[in-house]
Amino acid sequence: MAKIPKRSPLAPARFPVLPGLAGVCLATAACGIRYRGRTDVCLMELAPGSTVAGVLTRSKTASAPVEWCRRALRGGRARAILVNSGNANAFTGKAGVESVAETVARAAKAFDCPKTQVLIASTGVIGEPMPQNWIVKALPPLRRSLSKDAWRAAAEAIMTTDTFPKGATRQARIGDISVTLNGIAKGSGMIAPDMATMLAFVATDAKLPAAVLQKLLTPAVAESFNAITVDGDTSTSDTLLLCATGQARHPRIAQPGDPKLRGFRRALAELLQDLAQQVVRDGEGAAKFVAIRVSGAASKGAARRIGLAIGNSPLVKTAIAGEDANWGRIVMAVGKSGEKADRDRLSISIGGVEVARDGAVVPGYDEAPVAGHMKGREIDIAVDVGVGRGRATVWTCDLTHGYIDINADYRS
Amino acid sequence: MAKIPKRSPLAPARFPVLPGLAGVCLATAACGIRYRGRTDVCLMELAPGSTVAGVLTRSKTASAPVEWCRRALRGGRARAILVNSGNANAFTGKAGVESVAETVARAAKAFDCPKTQVLIASTGVIGEPMPQNWIVKALPPLRRSLSKDAWRAAAEAIMTTDTFPKGATRQARIGDISVTLNGIAKGSGMIAPDMATMLAFVATDAKLPAAVLQKLLTPAVAESFNAITVDGDTSTSDTLLLCATGQARHPRIAQPGDPKLRGFRRALAELLQDLAQQVVRDGEGAAKFVAIRVSGAASKGAARRIGLAIGNSPLVKTAIAGEDANWGRIVMAVGKSGEKADRDRLSISIGGVEVARDGAVVPGYDEAPVAGHMKGREIDIAVDVGVGRGRATVWTCDLTHGYIDINADYRS
Repeated sequence: MAKIPKRSPLAPARFPVLPGLAGVCLATAACGIRYRGRTDVCLMELAPGSTVAGVLTRSKTASAPVEWCRRALRGGRARAILVNSGNANAFTGKAGVESVAETVARAAKAFDCPKTQVLIASTGVIGEPMPQNWIVKALPPLRRSLSKDAWRAAAEAIMTTDTFPKGATRQARIGDISVTLNGIAKGSGMIAPDMATMLAFVATDAKLPAAVLQKLLTPAVAESFNAITVDGDTSTSDTLLLCATGQARHPRIAQPGDPKLRGFRRALAELLQDLAQQVVRDGEGAAKFVAIRVSGAASKGAARRIGLAIGNSPLVKTAIAGEDANWGRIVMAVGKSGEKADRDRLSISIGGVEVARDGAVVPGYDEAPVAGHMKGREIDIAVDVGVGRGRATVWTCDLTHGYIDINADYRS
Repeated sequence: MAKIPKRSPLAPARFPVLPGLAGVCLATAACGIRYRGRTDVCLMELAPGSTVAGVLTRSKTASAPVEWCRRALRGGRARAILVNSGNANAFTGKAGVESVAETVARAAKAFDCPKTQVLIASTGVIGEPMPQNWIVKALPPLRRSLSKDAWRAAAEAIMTTDTFPKGATRQARIGDISVTLNGIAKGSGMIAPDMATMLAFVATDAKLPAAVLQKLLTPAVAESFNAITVDGDTSTSDTLLLCATGQARHPRIAQPGDPKLRGFRRALAELLQDLAQQVVRDGEGAAKFVAIRVSGAASKGAARRIGLAIGNSPLVKTAIAGEDANWGRIVMAVGKSGEKADRDRLSISIGGVEVARDGAVVPGYDEAPVAGHMKGREIDIAVDVGVGRGRATVWTCDLTHGYIDINADYRS
């Protein structure tokens, strides 16, 4: 088992208070799938009629649970979400598929619902078979302990190399009715864009059709989970599910463009960014949180790809770890992104101080204030690539000895 | 200045003996561009009439010297190659372009040749202006010390974070005539594919038109410098030049497909692979040399991209550093490559031992022999992705604390 690293220095002061959410009950249990002396299974029960939308990894070697979710999400309804940590049930061949089928069948029976309303997610080691019949052992204690208040316990049960549980909550109004959004997430390594992060579960008591939920979710993911990177490595198991229990008594919403959704859309975007940034703040070995704001790109997508090229560069990340304002490496990363950039119009600011303009260091550049900024925990990098109006922000962390300590010895 | 790390444990036992090559003289000098107490400038003088081909970085923020080479290579002739280490003259704006122009003009005058026959390359820190008139200071000592035997000295003068000089030599026959190929290279970090590595210079006494040289060079680079990665970071300065002095008296060759070139083609491929592998063996902080052989891909290009996804994965590289046969991370990297793969037909061998077959661990898998292999210096990974006949080999190194030590403190 992995050494448990101490709490990330970038962790928030405390886990937020997530209020009870009408139509959602949670439970956790310790099933010993891999870890000893801690919970490793989590159940989220949703009221009958709850809708669901999701975003899954685009990996070509996606896990069996991800493949099941892809199929089940077509139905747009969720009654139960079962999550385990310690074993990803990925690259486990036929046995993995059978384990998923067994889990889904037993849970569907327990909750008296169609199988496609049971969603599952697994995170942990790749390539090891799941213990047989773990679900038989897990279901009774889970069902006994269902409660509206177990959000923090749920966030803890899904952790692997995470050093703190991740949660966020927001309120929004739809018409005159206040609705709540609660979310939890896990993830610390194998974090890269173009999918959700490893696991995140968001629920709301709003009453929204699955198709509307999905249309709200996709763009919000682009600017949150798909805008973060820890190590550029894409998980086989990334799963983000958004459920709506429909218990709030607001007017009917049929279209994602309904103006009554403005506040909800903003709250969802904020909540997903909050969770995504917590994942980065728990990046394996992270000692600094880095925001990379790219402007002047050919498009929004180009800006994001440039930001990710910077955020994934080992040379940029090690320079930040070394508190070195080595902006030459930022230039290198812009260049390797493959996106349009005008070397001779490129400008770079660090900590709000312009260091380079029009393709060269600013005249009389004084490194002292920038060096001071680099010693902080929150690093701000702004790059204008000088060719258009595309903008995006990407969040990442530094690359430290801690990342190597954790990953050179994760399995053993 | 960077701490000078001790010699890579993967370094070859010794620098090879590079024989004198008709039509090539070399010289080095210590100009104090950045480093003290060592050479940092190198001149390669080529006999009048020498031809040249090259491969340059595809970075969108390429350095001023790279842009000059791109222009000069159109002429296909080279009389002098000037190289400095310590300063990349990249992202230096108008001053950088002017420094190149001045250097080229002075060298062209000294060698009484058109400016386009002077090629230059710079490697080192990005974003700092070159010292003024360095070429004025450098040219006299360089011209005084030209010699046929300075290959090793040249390889040493172009080093930056390299821990050993890199050279290779091969012989080939064209018709009945024996020709020689000598090459030197540098590079240790900021090494990623889709270009040559930072700097490599190869010369031969064969008599080959520039267009033929270029047609021989491009495919050979695809299977050597473009098949290696240290950190996935693409330099602004990558330059590989291949010069032919034409002093060997073999029959005239007009076409790259001429069967008389078979031996030369093989020797060139071998020499470039030798140099490229030396660059990986000097990868910053490298403790293990890793060959990744991919088969069963949709195409050769797909196989190479899958190999690079594995070779660039921080999780795979740190697992290798930790001597952990964590093949689940190889599955993850195949999945994130975006290339076609059949998860359920994927097989993986490590050190010649099959660990996974048909999408799952092999029955009765015994990790002991694989764990033994992981303790060695040379790691062999073979992956068959089960969809086609594309094959490629990629070389990389592990990701260790040494990489972070070197790069968190390179500039300061």
